[in-house]
Amino acid sequence: MKATRKLAEFIHSLSYEDLSDDAIAKAKLCLLDWVGVTAGGYAGGRNDMDPMINSLQPFFGEPQATLITKKRKVDVLNAALINGTAGHYLDYDDIQSGMSGHPSVPVMPAALAMGEYRKVDGKGFITAVAAGFEAECRIGEAVNPEHYGSGWHATSTLGCFGAGATVAKMNGLDVAKIVSTLGIAGTQAFGVRQSFGTMCKPFHAGKAASNGILAAILAEGGFTAPQEILEGADGFGKIYSTKFDATKIDNLGQPFKIEQVVYKRYASCYFSHATVRCMLEIREKHSPEISQIDRITVEVGPLSISVAGNPTPQTGLEGKFSLSYCAVLALVKGQALESDFTNELVNAPEIRDLMTKVVPVLNESFTALESEICIVMTDGSEIKEKTDLISERAVSVAEWESILEAKSANLLRSSYPSERVQDVITAIRGLEEIYDIGKVAGLLS
Amino acid sequence: MKATRKLAEFIHSLSYEDLSDDAIAKAKLCLLDWVGVTAGGYAGGRNDMDPMINSLQPFFGEPQATLITKKRKVDVLNAALINGTAGHYLDYDDIQSGMSGHPSVPVMPAALAMGEYRKVDGKGFITAVAAGFEAECRIGEAVNPEHYGSGWHATSTLGCFGAGATVAKMNGLDVAKIVSTLGIAGTQAFGVRQSFGTMCKPFHAGKAASNGILAAILAEGGFTAPQEILEGADGFGKIYSTKFDATKIDNLGQPFKIEQVVYKRYASCYFSHATVRCMLEIREKHSPEISQIDRITVEVGPLSISVAGNPTPQTGLEGKFSLSYCAVLALVKGQALESDFTNELVNAPEIRDLMTKVVPVLNESFTALESEICIVMTDGSEIKEKTDLISERAVSVAEWESILEAKSANLLRSSYPSERVQDVITAIRGLEEIYDIGKVAGLLS
Repeated sequence: MKATRKLAEFIHSLSYEDLSDDAIAKAKLCLLDWVGVTAGGYAGGRNDMDPMINSLQPFFGEPQATLITKKRKVDVLNAALINGTAGHYLDYDDIQSGMSGHPSVPVMPAALAMGEYRKVDGKGFITAVAAGFEAECRIGEAVNPEHYGSGWHATSTLGCFGAGATVAKMNGLDVAKIVSTLGIAGTQAFGVRQSFGTMCKPFHAGKAASNGILAAILAEGGFTAPQEILEGADGFGKIYSTKFDATKIDNLGQPFKIEQVVYKRYASCYFSHATVRCMLEIREKHSPEISQIDRITVEVGPLSISVAGNPTPQTGLEGKFSLSYCAVLALVKGQALESDFTNELVNAPEIRDLMTKVVPVLNESFTALESEICIVMTDGSEIKEKTDLISERAVSVAEWESILEAKSANLLRSSYPSERVQDVITAIRGLEEIYDIGKVAGLLS
Repeated sequence: MKATRKLAEFIHSLSYEDLSDDAIAKAKLCLLDWVGVTAGGYAGGRNDMDPMINSLQPFFGEPQATLITKKRKVDVLNAALINGTAGHYLDYDDIQSGMSGHPSVPVMPAALAMGEYRKVDGKGFITAVAAGFEAECRIGEAVNPEHYGSGWHATSTLGCFGAGATVAKMNGLDVAKIVSTLGIAGTQAFGVRQSFGTMCKPFHAGKAASNGILAAILAEGGFTAPQEILEGADGFGKIYSTKFDATKIDNLGQPFKIEQVVYKRYASCYFSHATVRCMLEIREKHSPEISQIDRITVEVGPLSISVAGNPTPQTGLEGKFSLSYCAVLALVKGQALESDFTNELVNAPEIRDLMTKVVPVLNESFTALESEICIVMTDGSEIKEKTDLISERAVSVAEWESILEAKSANLLRSSYPSERVQDVITAIRGLEEIYDIGKVAGLLS
C-alpha cells in the first residue's frame, strides 16, 4: 500500500484503547509542557505577542477558542495561529529526534482550539494528538536528516501534517478525507531556517497549526486534494528531501512516536543542551574556581556549531543560540532557566569576561547531542567531561513528570495564581477522565 | 546592495507617476481578466466553491471585503483566500513567462480585499499591483526555470511574495517593514505540482493571497523577520532553486514585469495553447474533412507532454490538461471556451473517436509554447502547420483590450445582468479615476 494511504488508514483506525500506557502518559506530559512554555511565551517580556494579536485583531471571527493567558477567545484558526506562535516563542518546548523538530508546538494549539470548539473529551484529545505525532514524526523520519539539513524548518513543514492529522482524527474524518487532509496539509508545507532568530521561527509553529486545521476542515467539506502527497512524483517526499524513505511509514504505532518525545530541561537551543549538561556535571563534580580558569574548550558537532555557535550574543534570545553563553551560564549559575536569558545577564561584565575564554571546537564526528568540555586552569591542570544526551531517551515517564511539573509550574506562575497553576496540573494529570477539553482551556484563559 | 533590500526599496519608492502607460493599461487588463475568471470560477458548475465557503463559514470575521458573485462580505483574509481560489479554478487566468506562473491570481484578491477594507483609490491600487507583479516575476526570474522544473507550483510560492509586496505597498509600509513583509511572505512559500488536477491547485492561489496579506499586516505591526529571505544561506533562493541568480533583481521596472503579462485566449492549460492555436489555423486554412482523417500527430515540448499529456481525460477539468482533447476540440468546434470543457463533451462519442487518432509526439527541442501538427488523411495526403506562441508577447494593449472585454463579459454574464457587466468593464477602464476601489468590489458583489 502507498505510504500516504497507509498513514491515513492508521490514523483512522487508531483508538484510545490501542495506545500504550507510555503513549497516553506522554501525550499528557506534552500538553503539560506545552501549556507551560506557551504561557511563558506570552509572558516573555523580552518581546511579547502583542504585535501579532494587535495586527490580527481586526480579522478575528467569533469567540470559539481560548487565547492562553489573555482572558479572551477568538476564532479557532486564529487561536491556533496565535497560541502556536506563543508556544514556540521561548524555544523551550519538546523534541522528537526523528522529526528533527518540535512535535507539540504545531499539534497542541490545533488540538486545543478545535477540541474546545467541538467539545472533545480527554480520551479523544489524547488519541488525536498521538495520531498527529505519529504523522509528523514518521514523515520526518522518512525525509530526514536530509530534510532539516538542506535548510527546512522541520517543525513547520512537518507540523502542517501533524496538525492536520490531529484535527482530522479529532473530527472523525473517514480514510479518504484523511488522505485529502494530508494532501492539503502537505501542499501547504513551508518554513525555512533563514527565519531562525526572528519572530518567524515561532510563527512557523502557529502557522503550521492553522494550516493543519485548514487542511482538515477543507477535506471534511469535500475539497479534493492530491492522493499521494508523500510518495508522488512531485510530492513532499521528492521535493523536500534528497532521500525519501517510504519504509519509515511502516509499522506505525510500534512504538508510538509520541513515546520517544524528550523535553527541554534548559531554556536554550537544544543543540546547546549537551554543553549545558556537561558543564553542570563539571560544576557538581569539580567546582572549578572561576577566577583561576585560563580557557574553556567546548567540543561539539556540526549542527551545534551552525545553529548555536553565536560567540557574541547581544540579547537574551541570542544567548539561547550561543554555546559560549550557555556554557558560562551553567558554570556560574548552575542552571539555565528561562529567567536566565535576559539582555542584562547576557551583557553582565563577569559573564562576558568569562565568555571570552570559551573556545568552541568543531568535531565532525559528534552528533548534536554530544559535547566534551575541557577547562584549563591557570596552573595548567585540566578538568574534562563528556556528555551524550542520548541518555535523555531513557528517562522514565515518572521522572519526566516531576521535571515537567516543576518546569511548567514555574512558567505558569508568571500568569496565574498558585491555586490555578495547581488546578491546571491536576486537570492534565487526569486528562483521560475529562469530558470536555474546554475545561482545561478555561483554566488557561 | 542585497537583493531583498533592493527589491524593498524599489517597492517603497514606486509611485503612480513612475509607471509606464503600458504598465498602467496592463494592470487594468489584469484586473478585468481576473474579475472575469473569478466570477466564472464561482459559477463553474463542474464543481463549485461552496464546499470551501461552507467549511470556512464558522470562522469568518467581520464583513470587510466582498466575496465576488456571492452578495456578501467576509473578513479580509478569508475574502482573499476564497476569491483567490475561485480565480484560479478555471485555470483560465493570465501568465508571465519568467514567473512560470499566473501573476494575477495571488495578487488581485489580496489587493481587492485590502483595498476595499482600507478604501484605496484607483491609482493606489494600480501602483500596488504593479509593485506586487514586479516582486513575484523578478524573484521568479531569479529562481526559474529550475524552480518550476523541480516541482514547485510557482503561482503559490512566488505569489506569497507578490501578494505581500502588493499589500505592503498599498498600506504604505516603510522600507524596513517591506523587507520584513518579504521575509514573512517568503518563509510561508508553499505549493507543489503534485496538487495539479485537484482543488488544491486553485487553493494555492488563494492561500498565497492570504499568506501575503498576513505577511504585510504582521510586518506592519512590528513582527521581526529574516532580512535576507532571497539571498540568505538558508533563504528562498537557495532552498527553492538549484540556481538562484540575484542579478535578475537588478534594473527593476525596466521594463515593468506587468507589461509582459499575456492572457489566455483558450480555457485549457497554457501548455496546450500552441496546439489549440495551430489546430485553429489548420481548420481555417485547410478545413480538413473529419471523416477522412487517418491520424493526427501533435509534436510538442517536454513540459506540454508532462503537464498536458493526459491521453484519456474523463472529465471537463481533465480535458484542460489533455493535448488530445484540446486538439480535437479546436478542430471540431473551432474554439476552446470555458463552456467546451464539460464532462459531457469530453465523453461525446464523436470526440472520443477522433481522440483515438491523436498521437502526441515529444520533441525535446520545443518549448512549451510550440506545437507542430500533422494531419494524415486516409488518401495519404498531409496537412502540416507549426505555431509558436512567442508572438503573443507582441500583441498590443489595444488588441488585448478587445479580446479581454469579450472574454470577461462572456464569463461575467453567467453571474450578472448585462448592464452590470458593462458597468464593471467601464469602471475598470477608468480605474485610475476611481476614488475608492470598493466601488468596483461593490459592482462585483
